[in-house]
Formats: sequence, structure tokens, C-alpha cells
Amino acid sequence: MNQAGTSPLYAAIDLGSNSFHMLVVRHIDGSIQTMAKIKRKVRLAAGLDANNALSLDAMQRGWDCLSLFAERLQDIPATHIRIVGTATLRTATNADAFLQRANQILGHDIDVIDGDEEAATIYKGVAHTSGGGDRRLVVDIGGASTELIIGEGFDACALTSLKMGCVTWLEHYFKDRQLSQRNFDAAILGAKQTLAPILQQYQSLGWDICVGASGTVQALQEIMLAQGMDEVISLAKLQRLQKQAMAADHLEELDIEGLTLERALVFPSGLSILIAIFESLNIDSMTLAGGALREGLVYEMIDELRQHDIRARTIDSLQRRYQLDCHYGNQVSAMITHLRDQLGAEWFNEPQANVLLDSAAKLHEIGLTIDFKKGGEHGAYLIQHSDLPGFTRAQKQLIAQWLRRYRDVLTSVPEQAALSATSAKRGLRLLRLAVLLTHRRNPALAPDVTLQAQGDDLTLSLNKTWLTENPLTAAELDIEANRQSDIGWPLTIAAI
Amino acid sequence: MNQAGTSPLYAAIDLGSNSFHMLVVRHIDGSIQTMAKIKRKVRLAAGLDANNALSLDAMQRGWDCLSLFAERLQDIPATHIRIVGTATLRTATNADAFLQRANQILGHDIDVIDGDEEAATIYKGVAHTSGGGDRRLVVDIGGASTELIIGEGFDACALTSLKMGCVTWLEHYFKDRQLSQRNFDAAILGAKQTLAPILQQYQSLGWDICVGASGTVQALQEIMLAQGMDEVISLAKLQRLQKQAMAADHLEELDIEGLTLERALVFPSGLSILIAIFESLNIDSMTLAGGALREGLVYEMIDELRQHDIRARTIDSLQRRYQLDCHYGNQVSAMITHLRDQLGAEWFNEPQANVLLDSAAKLHEIGLTIDFKKGGEHGAYLIQHSDLPGFTRAQKQLIAQWLRRYRDVLTSVPEQAALSATSAKRGLRLLRLAVLLTHRRNPALAPDVTLQAQGDDLTLSLNKTWLTENPLTAAELDIEANRQSDIGWPLTIAAI
Repeated sequence: MNQAGTSPLYAAIDLGSNSFHMLVVRHIDGSIQTMAKIKRKVRLAAGLDANNALSLDAMQRGWDCLSLFAERLQDIPATHIRIVGTATLRTATNADAFLQRANQILGHDIDVIDGDEEAATIYKGVAHTSGGGDRRLVVDIGGASTELIIGEGFDACALTSLKMGCVTWLEHYFKDRQLSQRNFDAAILGAKQTLAPILQQYQSLGWDICVGASGTVQALQEIMLAQGMDEVISLAKLQRLQKQAMAADHLEELDIEGLTLERALVFPSGLSILIAIFESLNIDSMTLAGGALREGLVYEMIDELRQHDIRARTIDSLQRRYQLDCHYGNQVSAMITHLRDQLGAEWFNEPQANVLLDSAAKLHEIGLTIDFKKGGEHGAYLIQHSDLPGFTRAQKQLIAQWLRRYRDVLTSVPEQAALSATSAKRGLRLLRLAVLLTHRRNPALAPDVTLQAQGDDLTLSLNKTWLTENPLTAAELDIEANRQSDIGWPLTIAAI
Repeated sequence: MNQAGTSPLYAAIDLGSNSFHMLVVRHIDGSIQTMAKIKRKVRLAAGLDANNALSLDAMQRGWDCLSLFAERLQDIPATHIRIVGTATLRTATNADAFLQRANQILGHDIDVIDGDEEAATIYKGVAHTSGGGDRRLVVDIGGASTELIIGEGFDACALTSLKMGCVTWLEHYFKDRQLSQRNFDAAILGAKQTLAPILQQYQSLGWDICVGASGTVQALQEIMLAQGMDEVISLAKLQRLQKQAMAADHLEELDIEGLTLERALVFPSGLSILIAIFESLNIDSMTLAGGALREGLVYEMIDELRQHDIRARTIDSLQRRYQLDCHYGNQVSAMITHLRDQLGAEWFNEPQANVLLDSAAKLHEIGLTIDFKKGGEHGAYLIQHSDLPGFTRAQKQLIAQWLRRYRDVLTSVPEQAALSATSAKRGLRLLRLAVLLTHRRNPALAPDVTLQAQGDDLTLSLNKTWLTENPLTAAELDIEANRQSDIGWPLTIAAI
């Protein structure tokens, strides 16, 4: 049972400068399932003195945490465990003293990885959990270092690890714990100076999308959602949050809706670094990555998960895990393509729209695993709450909303941030028609159909004889025409 | 793809006296998953004239419905299809004329089954979807016949089909559509007279539990839930509903909270028959069966599902379908047994309590399939909304409530109808302790523990050295002791 060959369990531990984290996962059906997450705020970086020596207190906090982790590691094969130390352990002059004892406690060796390796591993964690073929800039603000990476697919073309982090910036720029304009200005300026050497290289390489990883960005997203904003981080929002933070004089009085106590201490310093990054690199918008260092460590151990199309891997894994009828999913997807092609490129051509709708087609029956009754609702629940590497939060929500409405009663799609309202609506109309037209699950039995559009006015034409011979489909198409027309999406069924 | 050997699809059609039903299922991992349900209220029995000949109108309604079904049957192998006709087709003098055309439309033969075969098939449908080894009385009130069966496990020892049903009783006793005491009295008396010949046999055979199948009983349960009652049907509740019904003068004005329009017409007549059955057979209480005729037809086609312990089959199927770690489930279950055995038979001895807790232990990680975060909540969602053959609705709810709380924050178990409040609480305490003590998933690494109880005051003793060497478990046990004690369930951890 403990043999590496048969155990599906893997563990990744990261001895960060702010927190130590342990992640235990199970490798199953082409995806990883989280089995345990343990985190302790060790704040190792805060234990560095002026000579960069770790205090005994800080070391003891680290060792205590590792003995908790050690207990959980006992049942996981050694080759399925990866433990790394980062910035503070790179810097500390007495790191060896800490590591010797730490290795003993864990019964496994800790790799102190250099900044480039850290950046490369973070990039792998992002690449394995984010979709799309765009060139991306990845930003990871840690406790004592910040990594910036540019890459495409699984290949990074620029890797940088800078010696600035939310713990070190806190100790340096907010030592008096004042949330003053002065402190913020100094912290932002300091970060800009640290960034200066890489600006030219990064700006000339360029990128299409920007994703942020780790605590600071995650805290930001939680705050934005709690305050009713959408998930996209912009400079304007960061500046608004800086103002909210400055409403308190002292760090101890900080009170921002959605900010957890645990993140509060390093929030202003992390925010300053992020503002500097946005301004220096002229970043428009940033979204949260699905994974970073620990996920990178896990994916490095599980080679077979390296697949270039992350979204396809995610869909495939869900289809296998929930034993969906893949032939049927493909049939619905093909029917959507067939319908859409008849409407011309303009009708449904937003970037991402087709890949999202194709994903919905392939997953639309997932809720039947739970129960036929309210199958759409169950499907929405599953998609909404599952981890879907390759899809952003907003994309996941839209797929869930489509799935909730793939059959039966029709209501309009609620406001969402993944596509325009028009595309969200049109996607749903195509999905429902395709599901209805293929309900016999046999491509040979699907009707010949012609779909025409005048704006949002659709006419679906079918052979008259076929409709007479297939009264169930005919009756359901009539009901569907009423349902769509009733909510202002005109649909006519024509027998020709 | 259409070969019987490989297709997982099965269809059962029942040409009932009130409605025609089609059920399409997929056989997967030792359980059946509903893929489609189509129902049309044909009301065939209402088309019988004084000479028991079906009107052409009624036949046409039937044929129209069957052409809808026929379309859906085309992709299902002939050996996976079973179509039966019941009471009205047994009675109608011109049934052959109806059947000849109907067979043509369907492309498959319809078996008109006699009353005994109908009763036997209903019993199979109940046996396959209900748990427990108790002797059961099954009552199924159809449109033109009522079946009463006594059996144990898969074996029926008394089968009866009586010529009374909610459609025929409506046409006979509520022809004027008046909801008067007179009409109810006459309908109940008529039913009692019909029941009279079997009373002695059934009473001498006896039974432990009584389950009701089909529309009337289902409508009753929906009404009771909508009105905030529990799921158990009793004579007192039936009489209360009769009073509610008589508040309207005419059937057309009937307005009972929770009664759907579709069931309203045959509700008073069905209720009268059920009251007569309760009174004649002295029935204390009845619960809704998980399946009846159509499920019986499906299970007859899928031989391998015939397993005597329905609950074990359900748990096994869920474990396979959601790829749960069965070794670990068994380990938690064994730890619960170990803990409970130390407390003596009195501490947790309610009938059903152990089998429910064992089921919860084996399924407790089901929510992790969706996400680690809020895993308990996801598990509760899955259990609550899945069909769990062998478990009553109340039992399913309790397992869901336990799963919601199997780890992390602890709140008390809400009111439920499956077990006493004490057993529900004690079960949860055992489950949480067992999960915590086995978190390393390796029986060799679990501690030796002694559990003692003074009423609800628990003391868990562990070896002092072991606790020192396993600080993660020690820390979690301390947290757990606080969590249980904080909500008034005293728990002490003793290091000995």
C-alpha cells in the first residue's frame, strides 16, 4: 500500500518566508484531487536580524510546524514527496542549522531552490492550471521574494526572482505600523527601484494576459468579491483599496470588507508591491491563477498530466470521473458547430465563446450523476464548486449557468463577466437546440436542420415528413419555440 | 452501438389506467441512473363504457402517447425494452383492437400482465429500492387496480390485485364531483368491501413495515412535506387531509397546499381507498417506496443487480462511482466499531443507528470529489440529492447532516426523523473521532485509544508518548475536545 507504484497520494511542502504550506493530493483519472491542506503562519522572514541570521525563536516556530507536517507524511511514498525552501532560506546565513534539524524532523530532505527554479516551478503550477494559448505574464508576490515570469503554454521565456516580498516590505517600509501616504509612497518607490532592471526586457517581450498567484492576489480577489466588484484586478481598484487602507491610521486598525485577519498584517505591503508592478509594467488587468509553487511541485512529480491543452484535460478528466457519455457530448458539440456555421461568423464570434460552449456541451449531463430530477441544477452545482484548471472563475460560473438551463424551463442568463450578455444568451440558445435535436443519442437519427437568423430572430427549418414521423421531437421543438419566444428570444419552427 | 451486449440503456413502459409512463435508465457501476422520464395522463380507464369497451377517443389518446414513446425507443436494443399493460387493458373487451395498433406504433410487443404478475413486479421494484430485512406490506394504488403484497427480501409470500383504483373510484363514487361526506363515506365503504376477502390472510401473515408506491402515496408525501409534517403517513394525517379536501365543495375547487394540479382530480378517490386500507388492515404508518412497477421491470432485465443487501449495493455503487478510498472508509468504520464497543451496548443501540453510521463512515469523503474546500457541505449536497435505494428520505437526510459535519467546525445536528436526537448526536461524535484518529489512512499508524462515557461525558485516553510523537493528531484532538465541549458535548483527552 505504501509503494510509490500504487499509492495515488502526493505531497508538496513549501517553506515560505511568510507561511509554511503542505498540500496532499490524490492523483485520479487525469486530475488531482486535494486531500489535505495544512498551513502555519511561521513568518520566518520576520526572524532575520540585521545580519541575516535567523533567530532561534523563528527557527523553533518552523521546526514545530514541520513536526506537524512530518506526521502526515508518514504514509506517503518518499518519491511522491517534494519539499522546498525559498527566499528566506536562501538568504539566512545560518540556514544550515535550521535545515539540519528540519531534515531530521521531516525524515526527508529539503531542497532550497534558487530564485530561477522557484520562478520556473511557479510557472509550471500556473501553466498546469490555466487555459488558453496566450502569452502570459505571471506575478507571484511571496514573503521575501517576488517572481515574474513570461511564458507561453508550458515554456517560460523570462524568469526573474526579485528580493522583495510582503514580509520584508512590511518590516522595512511599515515598521512603525502607520498606514500613511508617506509609508505607501516609500514602499511603492522601493518596489519600483527593485523592478527597474527588468523593465526593458519584460516590456520588449510583451504578453497578452497577466495572472497573479499566491496570498496577496488571492486576498485581493476575496476583497473585491466581498465588495461586489468583478474578479478582474486593475490599477484603479488597487488605488481604491490603498485609500480604504489609509482610512485607518495604524495597521492594527485596518478594516477592509473581505480582508481576513490572517492576511491583514502583510496586506498593505503586498498591495504596495502590486501597485508598483502595475505602474512599472503598465498592466491593464490581472486575474488570479489557479495554482503556483505547490501545484508546480505536484505536477512535476506526475508526468502524465503534462498536456498542452489544459482545458481539454479538465473536460476529459470530468467526463471520466463522472462517467459521462462522451459520444453523446461530442454529438451535441458537433450539432452546435453545425448550427452555428449556418449563422455566419458574426453571430457568435466572441473570443472564448466557442471553447466555453463546447465545454458546456461536453459536460451538460454531469448533473444526472446525482439525479435526473433537477439535473441541470445539480450540474450547475458541480461545475460551480469544482476546481476547473484552465477556466477562470467567471468562465466556470457561465458554464454553470448554461448547464442549469440546458433543458426544461428557460430563464435568461444572469449577469456574468465571462462573455457579453448577447453571447451568453446565444450560446444558451444553441446549446438547448443542440441537446433537443440530438436527444436520441444516435447521429444517424438526428434530423437535417437549417437554422437562419435575423439578429436574434431564429428560424429552425426541418423536413415536414420527418416531423410527422418523429412526433416527440416535433412536440418538444414546439414547446422550445414557445419557451425561447416567451422570454423575448424569438424562435420559429418551420416545417418545409 | 445498438447491440444489447454493449448498450447500457434500458427502457420500461407501463400503460397504466391513469397514465402511460416511460422510464429510460443507464446501467452503470452497479446502479441505475435515470436518463429520461416521459409521462402522459392518458386516463385510459375513464374511456371504458358501461360494457367495458374502450372509446375510440381514449384509444386515440393512448396511440398518440405511444408514438411519442416509440421515437425514443429507436436507439435502445429490443432485449432492453419491456412494455406492459395493466388493469384497463385486462378489462377492456376491445383491448385487442387497441393493442394491435399499439404494437405496430411501438415496434415492440406489449405484454398485458395479469394482476398477480403486476403485484409480483411491483414487489420486485420495491425490494430493489428499499433496505432492511423486515417483513413488509406493499400497497400500490393504481388507476384501475390496487396491489397488496407481503414479502421479505426478494420473496413475496402474498400477492393480490384488486379491481379498485383512483380513476375507477373517481368515476364511480365522485361522479358528481362533490367532495361531500356522503361521497367519501361511500368510497371508503366500497373500498372496504373490496378488501374484505383478503383481510384474514393478510392479518394472519402480518408485517413489520408498510410501504406505499405510486402516484397517490407520492402525492400524499409531497403534501405532508409542503405542510411541514414529517414523511410518515398515518391514519390521523389521512383523516386531516380528508377534512381539508371537504373544505371545498367541488373537486374543481380543491385547494390543498402541496397538491399539484395534475394529481388533484384523482386525489379524493385515492385518499378514500388509502383510508379504507389503513382502517381495514389496522396500519400504523406507511412510508413511500423508492420504486414500483417500472423499476421492477427494469431490475428484472438487469439480473446482476439482484443483491440481497440493497443498502450495501447502494454504498458500494456510490463508492465505485465517486472512486472513494474504500480501504479508508472501512478503516473509519472499524474505528467506530472499536470506539462504540468500549462504551457498552446501551450507549448507541437504537435499531438502524449502526447501519446508518456505518454508511456515513463509508461515504464521508464523497464531497472531496467536488472540492476539498467545503468538502462536508458538498458531501451533504450529493447525498441529499442522490437516489439512495435502501434508505428512506429521513435516513438520507441524517447521513447528509452527519457528512456536512464530519470535520472542522461543529454545530449540533438539526431536528430529523431518522433517529432520536441522542443517537444522531452520539453518531456524529463517534464519526468525527474516528475520522480524526485515522487521518493517516494506515491502520498500522492509528493510535491505541480507550473511550469511556458517563452519559454524554466522554473521555478519550491515549498513550502519552504516542501523543508527543504525533503532535498533529494531538493538536487536532485538543481542538476537537474544545469543539465538542463548546456545544455542550463534554469531551476530555487524557494522556496516560
